[in-house]
Amino acid sequence: MDAAARAAEAAFEAFAALPPAPRAAFLRSIADRLASRDNGLVERAGAETALPRPRLESERARTANQARLFADLLDEGSWVDARIDRAQPDRQPSPRPDLRRMLVPLGSVAVFGASNFPLAFSVAGGDTVSALAAGCPVVVKAHPAHPGTSELAARAILQAARETGMPDGVFSMIHGPSPAVGFRLVTHPAIRTVAFTGSFRGGKALFDAAARRDDPIPVFAEMGSANPVFVLPDALATRGEEIAKALAASVTLGAGQFCTNPGLLLVAPSDAAAAFVARLGALLAEAPAGTMVHAGIKAAYDAQLAAVAAIPEVALAARSPARGPNAATEAQPALLVTDGPAFAAQKRLGEEIYGPVTVAVRCSSRQDVLAAARRLEGHLTATVHATGRDLASFPDLLPILARKAGRVVVNGVPTGVEVAHAMHHGGPWPATTDPRATSVGTAAILRFARPVCFQDVPEGALPEELRDANPRGIFRLVDGRLTKDAL
Amino acid sequence: MDAAARAAEAAFEAFAALPPAPRAAFLRSIADRLASRDNGLVERAGAETALPRPRLESERARTANQARLFADLLDEGSWVDARIDRAQPDRQPSPRPDLRRMLVPLGSVAVFGASNFPLAFSVAGGDTVSALAAGCPVVVKAHPAHPGTSELAARAILQAARETGMPDGVFSMIHGPSPAVGFRLVTHPAIRTVAFTGSFRGGKALFDAAARRDDPIPVFAEMGSANPVFVLPDALATRGEEIAKALAASVTLGAGQFCTNPGLLLVAPSDAAAAFVARLGALLAEAPAGTMVHAGIKAAYDAQLAAVAAIPEVALAARSPARGPNAATEAQPALLVTDGPAFAAQKRLGEEIYGPVTVAVRCSSRQDVLAAARRLEGHLTATVHATGRDLASFPDLLPILARKAGRVVVNGVPTGVEVAHAMHHGGPWPATTDPRATSVGTAAILRFARPVCFQDVPEGALPEELRDANPRGIFRLVDGRLTKDAL
Repeated sequence: MDAAARAAEAAFEAFAALPPAPRAAFLRSIADRLASRDNGLVERAGAETALPRPRLESERARTANQARLFADLLDEGSWVDARIDRAQPDRQPSPRPDLRRMLVPLGSVAVFGASNFPLAFSVAGGDTVSALAAGCPVVVKAHPAHPGTSELAARAILQAARETGMPDGVFSMIHGPSPAVGFRLVTHPAIRTVAFTGSFRGGKALFDAAARRDDPIPVFAEMGSANPVFVLPDALATRGEEIAKALAASVTLGAGQFCTNPGLLLVAPSDAAAAFVARLGALLAEAPAGTMVHAGIKAAYDAQLAAVAAIPEVALAARSPARGPNAATEAQPALLVTDGPAFAAQKRLGEEIYGPVTVAVRCSSRQDVLAAARRLEGHLTATVHATGRDLASFPDLLPILARKAGRVVVNGVPTGVEVAHAMHHGGPWPATTDPRATSVGTAAILRFARPVCFQDVPEGALPEELRDANPRGIFRLVDGRLTKDAL
Repeated sequence: MDAAARAAEAAFEAFAALPPAPRAAFLRSIADRLASRDNGLVERAGAETALPRPRLESERARTANQARLFADLLDEGSWVDARIDRAQPDRQPSPRPDLRRMLVPLGSVAVFGASNFPLAFSVAGGDTVSALAAGCPVVVKAHPAHPGTSELAARAILQAARETGMPDGVFSMIHGPSPAVGFRLVTHPAIRTVAFTGSFRGGKALFDAAARRDDPIPVFAEMGSANPVFVLPDALATRGEEIAKALAASVTLGAGQFCTNPGLLLVAPSDAAAAFVARLGALLAEAPAGTMVHAGIKAAYDAQLAAVAAIPEVALAARSPARGPNAATEAQPALLVTDGPAFAAQKRLGEEIYGPVTVAVRCSSRQDVLAAARRLEGHLTATVHATGRDLASFPDLLPILARKAGRVVVNGVPTGVEVAHAMHHGGPWPATTDPRATSVGTAAILRFARPVCFQDVPEGALPEELRDANPRGIFRLVDGRLTKDAL
């Protein structure tokens, strides 16, 4: 671990100094190796996580495309947010110097992958490729649930690094008993930033450890959330069946092992509400068992489900009796039902239960719905099923949800996180440790960069992005005006 | 304190929902009131801080202009970093939803002003106006060193808020014994972010308190630094006298009470080095005493100076004998001299001494200079005095310094922080608690905003910035291309 962190530190100076083109070549080489059909990644990941092959194939494609997207971002180049304020030598009472500012890499990054995405949020996932794109060396702590998949992905990255002439130490991976190795990595002086995807408990522990350092470092932890879904009256009346089916499919997708799993349902008062909740219960009761990635997660699901079902005002309205081939990892979908006052009184009802279950809250009034929205903690997503009429009669709801969540979805499901420029996969505490950060989409690179201002630095010593002629052809804010023009 | 924090929370929903124009009007009204000659601000600040009138007049103008700059930023509007990825309903294997993302306000901000800038970094300073510009209510904890100035500035803001129809609670100010009230404010559930300018000890204590909350919040603390200045051989030989004069003036400016005060000097080996250090010592020995803002700060200066001078390898090479009218607040400029090995061995030599003193490190080789640069902790600024020949023979130096500092200055002095788009007033720990944040310049607004993504949200429910027609006329990243065009 110490060797990996020190190697990353030693690589930083050379890696940070590389122009964008070789970094982009490195990322494309990683993408090609991940996409290659004969690398054994999908087979190994299937054996280690029990995730079905089509899902892993699409996750593999997503992971490779993500690396390519960051390569494209480097080629385009404007992400560095270059700003130039030209000198005003004749300004009174004192001249203004020449100021040129852009984003530069932050330093070595420790990456902790998730159990539920052995490719896209793991060794070669979004955190790693966005950190490498920013110019930061990476040390990955492999997830113990898929060590072989991790090893194959790490080899692909190391081969790509060699092939494209990256400095030694630009990428390392370590295995080890989870908390002990993780803490040592996060508190290592050579590590300057941490990216994590996983449980609240895990993310909070790393955050605390990093904050207690003599030199605290940023921790970007995405810790999941309950992802509230509001179902408004007119939508309920006109599309109840469709919404119930979409939600049942979203709740059970991947055995509920998505950080955007819709685990909380706020049902507006309506004549159709009882039938809707009953129908959702029937769909979940009929759903097959889902294989979770390991027995510990399935045991935690059962325990959390039982704990919430034991709250007096909560009913276990449905639970699928389906069994899979291995009881230790098969999770039965379920529906819990409660009411507005119970939701207001019991903080636990707004928290995630990791697995194929959702808690339906039957609200008794419009005020109940808005009060529930205002009471929400931070979530990755918040969804509203609504007609135009619904939105008009709940004008406050979307603005409230935009303050509670990183992404607001209308008439869709929160599962399915597009890798795109406009994606924000993050949200206020406790969904993440930094509400400004996204772990998906091109803005993820901004976590690993910081601005530097160059004052009166001669042209020849400036980074290309800040030179008069704008040789990189990027957008720059020149004296307050965004332009690709040379000075 | 509790009432102020709750009032801010209550104001947030209405204030965040305001379009940019009324927020800009609020900021301009604040600026007009600050700029007004008959508000008594400069007189009161002079009485409370002993800063000279011309300095306070220029600080007042800067503070007003800063509020206007943020108003202009809101009018222009592109700062919200709007991004739109259009739906692809026919994409295989699954359609892509419509994604639109922009920055929204983060929540109520607690602001802690500095003692050394009673206007520009205090009640109506950069932290307050950038937070208000972002749409965040503000609660200021007044600095006990200038309570009357604080009260006048707070009244100006409150009058501006009333005149422009802002919601009650959008701004409050509290007085009180510093640490106790400050901690209660930072740990109040209604406060979502903290901005601080001051000492390392003060900033670190608030950072720790915020990190220990059940729901940790970001703390943007600017905690000063030693601001290393490198003087390279050719510059020393050709401009030694000029550099010595500029440095002596910068070290003694405002009695050394600037967070960008050049407190550390790395002098490259050269025949001219001894004469240069001697000349700098002579200039500082001749400099008048400077009045510090209160007796506690002056006592701390004397104590720190004595402690560093007591290090065996350090010589007190010069100290001005000048006395001012009030011994309790008059600080005598000084020069400390040491060598490369001592600088390498003594961490204290790289840390700030708050006041009109600088530590000159006589390096004995080119390697010594680069090793000193590599050993630096984070600083707000790093300066190099160099000719083209110097830069060519020290090609590594500027890239190293860009990794250590928030601003790299060539052939200038670090004091004087322009309020501009390209300014970055921040830097790696321990200069600040977040290397990505600036407290000066338009990018300061980014501390108080977070992205939200709207997925398939109907046009009518979207913020203006994200509507098809682009009614705000801002730059937006549409399908990866920056444009002001409508969709």
